[in-house]
Amino acid sequence: MTTVSEYIDHDQHGVSVGIVEKKFFIFAQPPHEMLLESGAKLGPVTIAYETYGELDATKCNVILVLHALTGDSHVAGYYSSDDPKPGWWDIMVGPGKAIDTNLYFVVCSNILGSCMGSTGPSSINPAADRPYALDFPLVTLGDMVTAQKALLDHLGITRVLSVVGGSLGGMQVLEWTVKYPDMVASAIPLATTTRHSALAIAFNEVARQAIMADPNWHNGDYYAGPKPDLGLALARMIGHITYLSDESMRHKFGRRLQDRMDFSFDFDANFQVESYLHYQGTKFVDRFDANSLLYLTKAADYFDLEYQYGGARP
Amino acid sequence: MTTVSEYIDHDQHGVSVGIVEKKFFIFAQPPHEMLLESGAKLGPVTIAYETYGELDATKCNVILVLHALTGDSHVAGYYSSDDPKPGWWDIMVGPGKAIDTNLYFVVCSNILGSCMGSTGPSSINPAADRPYALDFPLVTLGDMVTAQKALLDHLGITRVLSVVGGSLGGMQVLEWTVKYPDMVASAIPLATTTRHSALAIAFNEVARQAIMADPNWHNGDYYAGPKPDLGLALARMIGHITYLSDESMRHKFGRRLQDRMDFSFDFDANFQVESYLHYQGTKFVDRFDANSLLYLTKAADYFDLEYQYGGARP
Repeated sequence: MTTVSEYIDHDQHGVSVGIVEKKFFIFAQPPHEMLLESGAKLGPVTIAYETYGELDATKCNVILVLHALTGDSHVAGYYSSDDPKPGWWDIMVGPGKAIDTNLYFVVCSNILGSCMGSTGPSSINPAADRPYALDFPLVTLGDMVTAQKALLDHLGITRVLSVVGGSLGGMQVLEWTVKYPDMVASAIPLATTTRHSALAIAFNEVARQAIMADPNWHNGDYYAGPKPDLGLALARMIGHITYLSDESMRHKFGRRLQDRMDFSFDFDANFQVESYLHYQGTKFVDRFDANSLLYLTKAADYFDLEYQYGGARP
Repeated sequence: MTTVSEYIDHDQHGVSVGIVEKKFFIFAQPPHEMLLESGAKLGPVTIAYETYGELDATKCNVILVLHALTGDSHVAGYYSSDDPKPGWWDIMVGPGKAIDTNLYFVVCSNILGSCMGSTGPSSINPAADRPYALDFPLVTLGDMVTAQKALLDHLGITRVLSVVGGSLGGMQVLEWTVKYPDMVASAIPLATTTRHSALAIAFNEVARQAIMADPNWHNGDYYAGPKPDLGLALARMIGHITYLSDESMRHKFGRRLQDRMDFSFDFDANFQVESYLHYQGTKFVDRFDANSLLYLTKAADYFDLEYQYGGARP
């Protein structure tokens, strides 16, 4: 048996939370389906989640971590003793770390519509005994937060010390603060917005079109055949253009060539920035579902905290 | 017969140059092919061009206009009396306009590698009696300028008052100033750069990948069958993201919806910015060749005036 103390982080970020386990919460069983903001109903709903640290007797030491677009519930720790890679925020969440699991009970769930264990378009539609594909209803940031609230109810948690998240996770943080203000003692929204600009929508729409233009996409119905990998890789490349600023791209890549002294005078990727994008695109298709990317980017584009709570649309 | 004076510009930008004609200059006949910067040879080469105004006796009243990525030689005037649309810079070039054709002899040629009359990948390869497709050699900004110089030689012009152009046309302007400095009295490079940043290369590479991921692209060999329209439209959408600033997109579109009051909760284009991008993409495939876009964006990415003339690469 491996003990927590053996999980020394080799980057000297401190000790890991150790071995963790992905759990599943199932709710909204028919006839008690979730009523989504679109008016559609969805159920049963599975929410994959993980917890770290211990819930104290008052149930008041809870920190809810909310992940970004393509993230998952695996914030910290390892799934096994030979797991090569810790959770995505292991640097922040663990014993003695910024979000200290010696003090706090940390909860993270995979968002509704994703493909990392929670119900999404790649999940089996019980009514049809096959993946939902485009029969999956469009979900909103509000719906995601409703599902997270159901999970907290299930865990007996009525108030959280803080909700924390970046990017799409930060949108969820903001949604939490207005949807369930009485449950939230503090909020840490990182690198996020109350609503996407036209430019952000433009990037997302072109990424979606890249997926939908792939003939393997088959109007979303590809789960029994070849997947729209080329389209999904392209969508991810478009996304990655937005993940670095102009300035950081200059610094990271400039006009440097990848493993060569001069141009090949063909359409190969000669520049480092091209190789980087290709790598990111290719790597992504092994871990993410194309339909989920469609649904989650659409949810992000629809999100408009200002309009939703009485402001103007533009 | 229609006379020039009948071409009143209805936007009140002044009188048009009237009816104009696209001409063709053919050179580099084998065995005297162009030696390209890549080391490859190309010939014969056709350059489509137009001229406006009169060359004076000293041949010293010449203004060379250089077009952008997907432009053509048709700067000003109309092709016929019922032509609905003037050339792309009719507002600037004409009698009494900023580039005054009463004073200057204006020359514009379609760039090498394009598809608007000059030799490019969609042209017939005389060695194979079919379109070059990817057998077309990669051309550089330097090669484009070499072809323009050959045209001026043909027209008996040894010195130009000014070279003017924006974007890729501006790169050509800069290339002219260092390649043939003795021929250029002044230069007006607009909205351009001495070399693309990593971000600009990233956008171009993703646009190219969009074309190359389209199964109709067939490794460039699509001229006898269906064209890679979806990929080309997607490439154009990516391009259009870069043609407006974040701020101008906010102003032009914001989060306004297109002909509707609320979301459709599906993957239709609901936002105005989405409709705009779809329109731009769809419109583009009717007028431009996908392979030419590959070649011209690659030429733009390779362009590095600083490195080429002794500077460092990054």
